[in-house]
Amino acid sequence: MTLILHEYAASGNCYKIRLTAAHLGVPIERREYDVMTGATRTPEFLATINANGRIPVLQDGDRFLPESNAACFYLADGSALIPEDRFDRADMLRWMFWEQYNHEPNIATVRYWLVYVGETALTETQRAMIPGKRAGGEAALALMDDQLARTPFLVGDQFTLADIALYAYTHVASQAGFEVARYPSVVAWLARVAALPGHIAIDA
Amino acid sequence: MTLILHEYAASGNCYKIRLTAAHLGVPIERREYDVMTGATRTPEFLATINANGRIPVLQDGDRFLPESNAACFYLADGSALIPEDRFDRADMLRWMFWEQYNHEPNIATVRYWLVYVGETALTETQRAMIPGKRAGGEAALALMDDQLARTPFLVGDQFTLADIALYAYTHVASQAGFEVARYPSVVAWLARVAALPGHIAIDA
Repeated sequence: MTLILHEYAASGNCYKIRLTAAHLGVPIERREYDVMTGATRTPEFLATINANGRIPVLQDGDRFLPESNAACFYLADGSALIPEDRFDRADMLRWMFWEQYNHEPNIATVRYWLVYVGETALTETQRAMIPGKRAGGEAALALMDDQLARTPFLVGDQFTLADIALYAYTHVASQAGFEVARYPSVVAWLARVAALPGHIAIDA
Repeated sequence: MTLILHEYAASGNCYKIRLTAAHLGVPIERREYDVMTGATRTPEFLATINANGRIPVLQDGDRFLPESNAACFYLADGSALIPEDRFDRADMLRWMFWEQYNHEPNIATVRYWLVYVGETALTETQRAMIPGKRAGGEAALALMDDQLARTPFLVGDQFTLADIALYAYTHVASQAGFEVARYPSVVAWLARVAALPGHIAIDA
């Protein structure tokens, strides 16, 4: 069965899925949508691919799976990217839920606004939200740094989906002005993840 | 081993964990923290319970698990609340990640701001964010309604953690002015979930 990734390649959320597939050696076919011109909000996209109007969506046959971290879990289910220990498995999910709540809405959103939309095109409300998101993003990096000072990967000694989910936007956070260099354990972890066999770059 | 839930009982995120435990018949001990007075930001809380300064946290022995949906997964792992089918299992996680990204930050945040903090105590930026969060919350309810018009529960015929995760704030959304009655399949699903054996109320 061919897996199809409906995506916008520059999105870290889409990169997570490609990175998971690369580590697993699972081939995926890629279909690109220009989110800047509303290609994921067309009636056809909403009716067949994702009623939520967002990418990424992983398609397996006639079934469609939105939400990047759920798609990573689907690909990796039963593999060494998900811990066998029950607490560690939940702890991996803890980091992945935290990523979507505390990391992505701060770091990925500021990156999208500043790098892709452009500061001058933002609404006043968006502009007013930047300081809060910047503080939230720095706090997220500090929390990761605290964990990564104690363990080589987010869930102890094992490289898991939690590392993939958090690598995606952390390794491009400096594009949005986040001071990643202030978090030495994060910097070392970024290098550790990038050096793993099977790793691919966001623009691969 | 005694499970301890560190919580603020009125929080839907904490209720999710109690509701999961109730369905599983697993006893949990409860410890209450007043989030309104900063009880989850004390040096002791940050050092031992959660460096992220948030509840809920599920404690099992000397291990601490933050993030509500991860704690639900930990409790339910291996039970009928998590589908055995691989795609359905990922689809359950899809709804849970979507809950934390598209539903909770809109519906739960507006409820917290209006019902607990109070409109007059909000910052100007928070006030400016309400219309966007209101629109986002209504869109989330519409997306659920679309799914629930087709299947009795979010992942087909089976009651899963996705239903628990989304019941928590949907059933109190009207407290924050969300027009839940406009979504008949959501209304029917709320009644369906509340009628299940094992169900408990948020103030139980």
